Amino acid sequence: MKTLGYYNGTTGEIGDLRIPMDDRACWFGDGVYDATCAIRQRALFLEEHVDRFFSSAALLQMAPPLSREDLAGLLAGLVRQVEGDRHFLYWQITRGTAPRNHAFPGGKANLWAFIRPSPAPDLTQKVRLITVEDTRFFHCHVKTLNLIPNTLASERAKRAGAAEAVFYRTEATGKGNFPGTGRVTECAHSNIHILAGGAFRTAPLDNLILPGVARAHLIKQCGLLGVPVREEAFSLEELFAADEVIISSSGTYCQAASHIDGRPVGGRDPETLDNLRRAVTAEAEGYIGQKW
Amino acid sequence: MKTLGYYNGTTGEIGDLRIPMDDRACWFGDGVYDATCAIRQRALFLEEHVDRFFSSAALLQMAPPLSREDLAGLLAGLVRQVEGDRHFLYWQITRGTAPRNHAFPGGKANLWAFIRPSPAPDLTQKVRLITVEDTRFFHCHVKTLNLIPNTLASERAKRAGAAEAVFYRTEATGKGNFPGTGRVTECAHSNIHILAGGAFRTAPLDNLILPGVARAHLIKQCGLLGVPVREEAFSLEELFAADEVIISSSGTYCQAASHIDGRPVGGRDPETLDNLRRAVTAEAEGYIGQKW
Repeated sequence: MKTLGYYNGTTGEIGDLRIPMDDRACWFGDGVYDATCAIRQRALFLEEHVDRFFSSAALLQMAPPLSREDLAGLLAGLVRQVEGDRHFLYWQITRGTAPRNHAFPGGKANLWAFIRPSPAPDLTQKVRLITVEDTRFFHCHVKTLNLIPNTLASERAKRAGAAEAVFYRTEATGKGNFPGTGRVTECAHSNIHILAGGAFRTAPLDNLILPGVARAHLIKQCGLLGVPVREEAFSLEELFAADEVIISSSGTYCQAASHIDGRPVGGRDPETLDNLRRAVTAEAEGYIGQKW
Repeated sequence: MKTLGYYNGTTGEIGDLRIPMDDRACWFGDGVYDATCAIRQRALFLEEHVDRFFSSAALLQMAPPLSREDLAGLLAGLVRQVEGDRHFLYWQITRGTAPRNHAFPGGKANLWAFIRPSPAPDLTQKVRLITVEDTRFFHCHVKTLNLIPNTLASERAKRAGAAEAVFYRTEATGKGNFPGTGRVTECAHSNIHILAGGAFRTAPLDNLILPGVARAHLIKQCGLLGVPVREEAFSLEELFAADEVIISSSGTYCQAASHIDGRPVGGRDPETLDNLRRAVTAEAEGYIGQKW
């Protein structure tokens, strides 16, 4: 198969699969997901993604219909059914199938997945970003299907010729007691970090950002490289003034930015940036799953 | 038929209908909806609901695949296909069917609808409410499918034996420059209002509440009854101290609350409450659509 879709045990090309209208995804976006890339048919950092997936599910009081072990095994098996060397692997659960009523229906969660080919990113190229006020909800640490603000911001980025949109919170959108002019949270589908004064700075894990697996590996590699890490929120001002601006996701690991809102950014600590990019890329590309 | 589901021209019992896995509802909850009740097979205030639906769609840069006229005609026709005298009529559009990528795919929106029997509410019975911090996003004036916080709050209400959850915003969740201890916004699937000092008080229309059709009819009936209307946000304190507490939706029109978080509320202006309830109920139950 060229792509693979999965729904509660049924598989087929993604475009051929049909799901019940009363799946809770359809009326409420009531589900959680996770995703990673697969390299030579091994899903990257699969155990960490499955752990985060179970954490997302628990935060919404949902129970995946199978164990961590069985889910990881199932996903690893699905990846091997699709042709090619590099894939995007995505899976989600939704809160069952039931007539539309807000409160939980009871019953088992539905399990979905899909796999499709995905080319390797070129991380030597810097990308352009835009800024967008973060109008999302206060459950951003949960990887949910409620993604409308993310789609709107991504569309704005695309129209501006940018790769990603950087979210920031103000008084109106709940920046909390953060003192700055705008609190940078994350991007529409990536985390964001800066290099400043030789240190790696990234927002702390709270309900405003997703605990990125790539973020965790960046922090780990900083440790190995001797780059100090500060998990502390930063402002838009600090973002524009940073020595380097980095976005990360399970598909891009460590991607530097050249411009934000059309203004040049970064470029002042190419050595640390390069070391970090090489380190996380080497770890990912050399990844051999412990079990799957 | 006992229920009716509709998807891009295909109809059947809701439980039998299947939709493509790549509909944008499935990955992003990327759609807008509207809903009303139908009495003797006439969809209540259908023109107003269709207008709001088009407004929701425009706010998300989506275009319904047919005109207001044609949509209203289609929905009115669907209602007549289902047995019974009282129904819940629901419809939505989603941003097309395409491989999962955040930015807009282009192409036509998908049109969904369903109709099911729905008993008349007993509005002489007061209901219990609970309060829940409003952790939703800042697009609450748009009737979207991103409803996870609403489902969580509804589940909490249900477990507490309550009919609805009252949302309020704090500093952390973006109460803006509202001076009070907690800014009441709306409920998980209703608007909320109070009677205080002989006046009807309701939050103003901004991005924190849905412009309820029932809310508009309550305001209209207040005008006819000579009850002053103040469209001004109120606090949790004012809610608990109100003469009466009223929730409204297109299914319940004007439903009074007896308790919030287990504490007795209201009961101090039964005459105004009763007049208002009778007026909006009479208007709704006597409704004859102008065209459909």
